[in-house]
Amino acid sequence: MSFDHLQDLIRAKKNPTVAGLDPKPEYVPPHMLKASLDRYGETLEGAADAILQFNKGLMDALADVVPAVKPQSAYYERLGWQGMRVLDETIRYAKEKGLFVIADVKRGDIGSTAEAYSDGWIGRTRVGNTDCAAFDADCLTINGYMGSDSVGPFLDTCRAEDKCLFALVKTSNPSSGELQDMVAGDRVVYQVMGDLVQRLGRDELGKYGYSRAGAVVGATYPSELRNLRKRLEHTFFLVPGYGAQGGTAQDVQNAFDKFGRGAIVNASRSIMCAWKKTGRDGLDYQDAARAAAEAMRDDIKQYVTVL
Amino acid sequence: MSFDHLQDLIRAKKNPTVAGLDPKPEYVPPHMLKASLDRYGETLEGAADAILQFNKGLMDALADVVPAVKPQSAYYERLGWQGMRVLDETIRYAKEKGLFVIADVKRGDIGSTAEAYSDGWIGRTRVGNTDCAAFDADCLTINGYMGSDSVGPFLDTCRAEDKCLFALVKTSNPSSGELQDMVAGDRVVYQVMGDLVQRLGRDELGKYGYSRAGAVVGATYPSELRNLRKRLEHTFFLVPGYGAQGGTAQDVQNAFDKFGRGAIVNASRSIMCAWKKTGRDGLDYQDAARAAAEAMRDDIKQYVTVL
Repeated sequence: MSFDHLQDLIRAKKNPTVAGLDPKPEYVPPHMLKASLDRYGETLEGAADAILQFNKGLMDALADVVPAVKPQSAYYERLGWQGMRVLDETIRYAKEKGLFVIADVKRGDIGSTAEAYSDGWIGRTRVGNTDCAAFDADCLTINGYMGSDSVGPFLDTCRAEDKCLFALVKTSNPSSGELQDMVAGDRVVYQVMGDLVQRLGRDELGKYGYSRAGAVVGATYPSELRNLRKRLEHTFFLVPGYGAQGGTAQDVQNAFDKFGRGAIVNASRSIMCAWKKTGRDGLDYQDAARAAAEAMRDDIKQYVTVL
Repeated sequence: MSFDHLQDLIRAKKNPTVAGLDPKPEYVPPHMLKASLDRYGETLEGAADAILQFNKGLMDALADVVPAVKPQSAYYERLGWQGMRVLDETIRYAKEKGLFVIADVKRGDIGSTAEAYSDGWIGRTRVGNTDCAAFDADCLTINGYMGSDSVGPFLDTCRAEDKCLFALVKTSNPSSGELQDMVAGDRVVYQVMGDLVQRLGRDELGKYGYSRAGAVVGATYPSELRNLRKRLEHTFFLVPGYGAQGGTAQDVQNAFDKFGRGAIVNASRSIMCAWKKTGRDGLDYQDAARAAAEAMRDDIKQYVTVL
């Protein structure tokens, strides 16, 4: 099943991290951006083309270091449908390179609308008598504020297509506690969400003991991370907040089980924008990104050994 | 400001309802679907073309009856970037027709990612020295589970671009209570979310007394709707759940203030699929949609007079 595949890739590359692909035009090295804007003008199409070339170059450089990529839909949506086309091409390219693709879309809706999102991101859409795959990621992120109605349809598609998901549980941002930390009975809200996700997914566990329903848990709250790891033993974690947001390798070790499994840690800007720190105008963006991804892997390796 | 404009349109048309544009290929009348699939094959492009023709025909029929349309992004995303292109064209067409556009995207993320979503849906994206508008809706829906970090950036864009938003507060689905009804201190979670939204928006009120930060409150929980109307006096409501989900005109009257203002009620399938009930194979889809929209308006008018 799908998290088994991700865990296998993590073990093969000895690297429990994922490279976020959250590109803005200003993250693209100047020579690449100029080439695209010269060709298409200062348009959404021009910016989208620059980002596609950049993403491909990054994936070429990272494909034997990281097991997975996580494109963040917002950065493609801000370029309109032209950006969404590039997101589609990015996902295709990642899969050709053998990378596991987590579509970070944080979708949340109910009933047939949740089904429509699942169709688009991890499933198939029926047109006449033909099944068409739209974005076709391996995994997506969802937001379950609307309750189990907004998680169930995604899990149904995961089962049908052998895919998986991460639901937001305890997020990495400073104000995440405003709702998520509220005490409600003998639990806090993020525990209720975590329990909900684990319950909905537990009918089917993979070879490493994890269900298809994972959780997003931020590195910036290490004690909550440790407690959730104990509480949700069948729930694979996606851990944002390492690096720029302040989470350390020591913090993220709490996300892993005793075999160093069951979690993947994200970094985005530190890898994409690594070229900005070398003083070479982005001509070395591939080497810089690869070195940053290796440094992150080695940093985490001090605390986590993936068995 | 933006909700003023929506309320002005509601008053002009004497109709506090919005037509949801949540199209699936099977909602398109057979003759229209066949024409598109004959042209483009059983592909995402073919389905997207059929939906665009259908949406345009619906808007032609509805433009002098309803003040607003609410395309639900999921139904476009399930057709990939080809669907997103049609969503873009749908929004443009709606604005040409003078319809207020609520992009029902329920986005939720933090910091620069929330900014990226705002750029894409209600703002502008900088490319070189040029500001490009992507989807350019008048208003969008958001999900604030991540806290004020995930609401603030959207509101900043609303202020800069004179637009507005609806944040999920109490949703219409059966399982909405799993999280939203949890008692936390002296409030329940959806009240916390409602208070948060009202607090973040209250710096600027329009001529009808409403801020830029609206709330989604379902018709299916009429007593919660009544209580939230009292609690959130500066918060414009988007009310789903009328019709197919079980909410009645009597239920939705609770969403309005004493002037019959401050809320808009959504219906989607009952309007889009009205042709399925007339026995004319969809040749009359425009008349059927218009009659359904008028019937909904008149049903609500029994309980609500918009002054």
